[in-house]
Amino acid sequence: MRTGRDAFHLAIPARDLDEAAHFYWRQLGCPVARRYEDRITLDFFGDQVVCHLAPETPVTEPRLYPRHFGITFRERADFDNLLRLVEIRKVPVFQAARLRFEGTVEEHTTLVLRDPTDNLLEFKHYRDPRMMY
Amino acid sequence: MRTGRDAFHLAIPARDLDEAAHFYWRQLGCPVARRYEDRITLDFFGDQVVCHLAPETPVTEPRLYPRHFGITFRERADFDNLLRLVEIRKVPVFQAARLRFEGTVEEHTTLVLRDPTDNLLEFKHYRDPRMMY
Amino acid sequence: MRTGRDAFHLAIPARDLDEAAHFYWRQLGCPVARRYEDRITLDFFGDQVVCHLAPETPVTEPRLYPRHFGITFRERADFDNLLRLVEIRKVPVFQAARLRFEGTVEEHTTLVLRDPTDNLLEFKHYRDPRMMY
Amino acid sequence: MRTGRDAFHLAIPARDLDEAAHFYWRQLGCPVARRYEDRITLDFFGDQVVCHLAPETPVTEPRLYPRHFGITFRERADFDNLLRLVEIRKVPVFQAARLRFEGTVEEHTTLVLRDPTDNLLEFKHYRDPRMMY
Amino acid sequence: MRTGRDAFHLAIPARDLDEAAHFYWRQLGCPVARRYEDRITLDFFGDQVVCHLAPETPVTEPRLYPRHFGITFRERADFDNLLRLVEIRKVPVFQAARLRFEGTVEEHTTLVLRDPTDNLLEFKHYRDPRMMY
Amino acid sequence: MRTGRDAFHLAIPARDLDEAAHFYWRQLGCPVARRYEDRITLDFFGDQVVCHLAPETPVTEPRLYPRHFGITFRERADFDNLLRLVEIRKVPVFQAARLRFEGTVEEHTTLVLRDPTDNLLEFKHYRDPRMMY
Amino acid sequence: MRTGRDAFHLAIPARDLDEAAHFYWRQLGCPVARRYEDRITLDFFGDQVVCHLAPETPVTEPRLYPRHFGITFRERADFDNLLRLVEIRKVPVFQAARLRFEGTVEEHTTLVLRDPTDNLLEFKHYRDPRMMY
Amino acid sequence: MRTGRDAFHLAIPARDLDEAAHFYWRQLGCPVARRYEDRITLDFFGDQVVCHLAPETPVTEPRLYPRHFGITFRERADFDNLLRLVEIRKVPVFQAARLRFEGTVEEHTTLVLRDPTDNLLEFKHYRDPRMMY
Repeated sequence: MRTGRDAFHLAIPARDLDEAAHFYWRQLGCPVARRYEDRITLDFFGDQVVCHLAPETPVTEPRLYPRHFGITFRERADFDNLLRLVEIRKVPVFQAARLRFEGTVEEHTTLVLRDPTDNLLEFKHYRDPRMMY
Repeated sequence: MRTGRDAFHLAIPARDLDEAAHFYWRQLGCPVARRYEDRITLDFFGDQVVCHLAPETPVTEPRLYPRHFGITFRERADFDNLLRLVEIRKVPVFQAARLRFEGTVEEHTTLVLRDPTDNLLEFKHYRDPRMMY
Repeated sequence: MRTGRDAFHLAIPARDLDEAAHFYWRQLGCPVARRYEDRITLDFFGDQVVCHLAPETPVTEPRLYPRHFGITFRERADFDNLLRLVEIRKVPVFQAARLRFEGTVEEHTTLVLRDPTDNLLEFKHYRDPRMMY
Repeated sequence: MRTGRDAFHLAIPARDLDEAAHFYWRQLGCPVARRYEDRITLDFFGDQVVCHLAPETPVTEPRLYPRHFGITFRERADFDNLLRLVEIRKVPVFQAARLRFEGTVEEHTTLVLRDPTDNLLEFKHYRDPRMMY
Repeated sequence: MRTGRDAFHLAIPARDLDEAAHFYWRQLGCPVARRYEDRITLDFFGDQVVCHLAPETPVTEPRLYPRHFGITFRERADFDNLLRLVEIRKVPVFQAARLRFEGTVEEHTTLVLRDPTDNLLEFKHYRDPRMMY
Repeated sequence: MRTGRDAFHLAIPARDLDEAAHFYWRQLGCPVARRYEDRITLDFFGDQVVCHLAPETPVTEPRLYPRHFGITFRERADFDNLLRLVEIRKVPVFQAARLRFEGTVEEHTTLVLRDPTDNLLEFKHYRDPRMMY
Repeated sequence: MRTGRDAFHLAIPARDLDEAAHFYWRQLGCPVARRYEDRITLDFFGDQVVCHLAPETPVTEPRLYPRHFGITFRERADFDNLLRLVEIRKVPVFQAARLRFEGTVEEHTTLVLRDPTDNLLEFKHYRDPRMMY
Repeated sequence: MRTGRDAFHLAIPARDLDEAAHFYWRQLGCPVARRYEDRITLDFFGDQVVCHLAPETPVTEPRLYPRHFGITFRERADFDNLLRLVEIRKVPVFQAARLRFEGTVEEHTTLVLRDPTDNLLEFKHYRDPRMMY
């Protein structure tokens, strides 16, 4: 059972910490918990994402599989608020919001963003919340 | 604020789904929510981890930075229970449990595991829970 | 008072564990917590159901009384999501969704499913949630 | 995820409703929500158990498998309180409290009671609460 | 701050325990936690009401002031469900549901019931929940 | 199920509102929500108590039965804090703290206070919290 | 993460405690927790505000920056209830309710009140609750 | 009732935003939610503190009354963690941690910090949590 007391934490590469801060903090609105010379820790929708400085990260065309991360919202309003933020602040979109697996139990809306280091972020909302896992 | 209603989700590569199932389900004890031909979705300590079949994932010596993931426990007992599970079930350890940043506010205990595809999992417990972010 | 910390657990017979896994996991969408040679443990809507291998369970026409189990949902939307799942995935229905005790305080909607061992599962939603007990 | 809003419900046979009321209400301390001619509904540790009048239920030596039910407590103190109640009120015990699977991750304390219709009730407490499912 | 862990308890007189049980349990739907020779304890909407046998309680025309008790519901739906129960089960009404202090901040809907010992029960719902205290 | 959203409310007589305010607010520490000419409303441990001016309330020796009210604390520390407050502020005690029903499941500690209008307040803590109802 | 267990507390000057009590208690409806000769402590929407007697506080035209305080409501209904209270009880308004930063992610409704010592209180509701911080 | 959904917000002057950021973010560990040219918004222990640029704020010897703010912790461990942080990171202390009102119901531990603009922050822990208001 997910609780409000533990936190998921994810460490990802960032070619440039200022760019990462711009994307996650200024654009996505994630509070910056700590900043060191080699990393930034973020309150990412209640969990922790750490951007580690990795300037040598190769520049390649990002692919959604097998590696991406994000939040599955329980409430549709939270997904819609994020969508509005993305449009207003012109956050880089990798794949526009769309319905997936329509007509099945797994039906969900999905939106994929792209950070400056080409990490992909997927945000989802399932019609049936039991499918969140 | 992290709530019990949303879920973090993380997609990672798995060279072999049976191996992944063995590690995450049989050893770590994460319930298997769904299994498809090309992926397994897991209830990973209340969040979602998806192992995508990626047999071509190169075999390299894993490094902790810049990419790893895990759970930061609010209660020490939860960390200790995981440690006991790792010992009893002989889950592959990349870095044994140790104290880090001792004597600072960021002081925490950390344990790093290694899954069959060489993804690294870090579990943490902070002395001061405000440092979880 | 029911809390989110304890769990109800129910052990039931299964003539065949693969059939049981198909019904509870693939169809009903209950994550599989553990699987042993002689049983499967399931996260059944947040509680625990264990299917024990009992191949000798006699085949008889199931009756709703005196033995059945299920979930009483607090929110109608959760009942409706289950109903949609049952229709899409063609889960075996013993008694279609219907209103019961209409016009009384105990009025509720009920749906009865049938697992491969002929255990009956009743899902309910009461108009007045005080009648859940 | 188990929540405090839904309820598990279980229907079981009772050869005699007065005997059932004595066991579940007077001895185990479960509040009686409703009583009809043919059944009693109980608030069983926050979930619902319904005893249906079934006088023809055959009298056989009860077996723990494949059919029993109960509560898995998250806190040891709740298990101990139940144990104390069982001793003071002399509730019929089928299997005394004992440790099971000692030294494994699944280690837990278990106590099995026997109701007047020979339904078996198992109460458990796991050392590692992740094993509750 | 009211929490879900403590309980308010109120002891009131009952001229006859069977009559009290009929009113609180059969009609109002409050589970009976315990019954002794001289009192009944009830789970009254999550708090405890105890009816003490007091056959000598004088029969007088009940007055709403200064003594009555009840529940102030946070959600209107809960008030409406109770109103529906009162109508269907013909629970004795002392004062029909009506709006009080209309147009003020303290505006609320109120319903007053009368138990067999002439204790008065007031159920309320405030338009502005801050006025519940 | 008791929730944090609804409130129990109890109306009691007060011979004098200043005296009542002194007892409930100054001594017991209950915040005063509202004061009118003829009543005071109090946040009584999270529920609502209203003291209605009733100067004609007869002066008689108070008896604990059949009428009293109070809080049953889930945590012993809360009972002990109240006990400490009563001693330091010299709140009028009707019956000193004592253990009741020792050795039974219903064993609890109880303390009875007396307000200036001779209403009796009982505060309790049960060894086994299931006995709170 | 804000929890329901800790409390923010703010101490502010009051030229006159009776005036302060009138504004915060009678008008805004904040329960008075304690009153001493030199201060009043208030349950201010669940947090604590303490008005300290400071008769020498200079009378100047209040400015919104850099000093003010208030509540950011998560639910619009709570903001609207406060607005209704302000209108009915004619609470002194410094700046009427208005939309701010319309069309941006930070869009919110804001209302500024003025207490008798010219402290300014701002109440807000954000369209996107992630902007509350 | 304080809930986890609303937030207290407090606006205070800052002579210099970098200094304010150093104190609140680097030293006290409050995540920075937003930074504009004229202000910083902070997640201050779950509530919001906004530092508004006010270079003209007069430099005077700070006094604790009538104006200060802070958090009253429900758990002693949270107070102690803050104390440890203050010592390790050498956060400027205005008044060292000490016991106040010893032997009374209002007994609490208090610590006062001083930010670079001479705003005073008081952190408290009460022996009896009912005194938090």
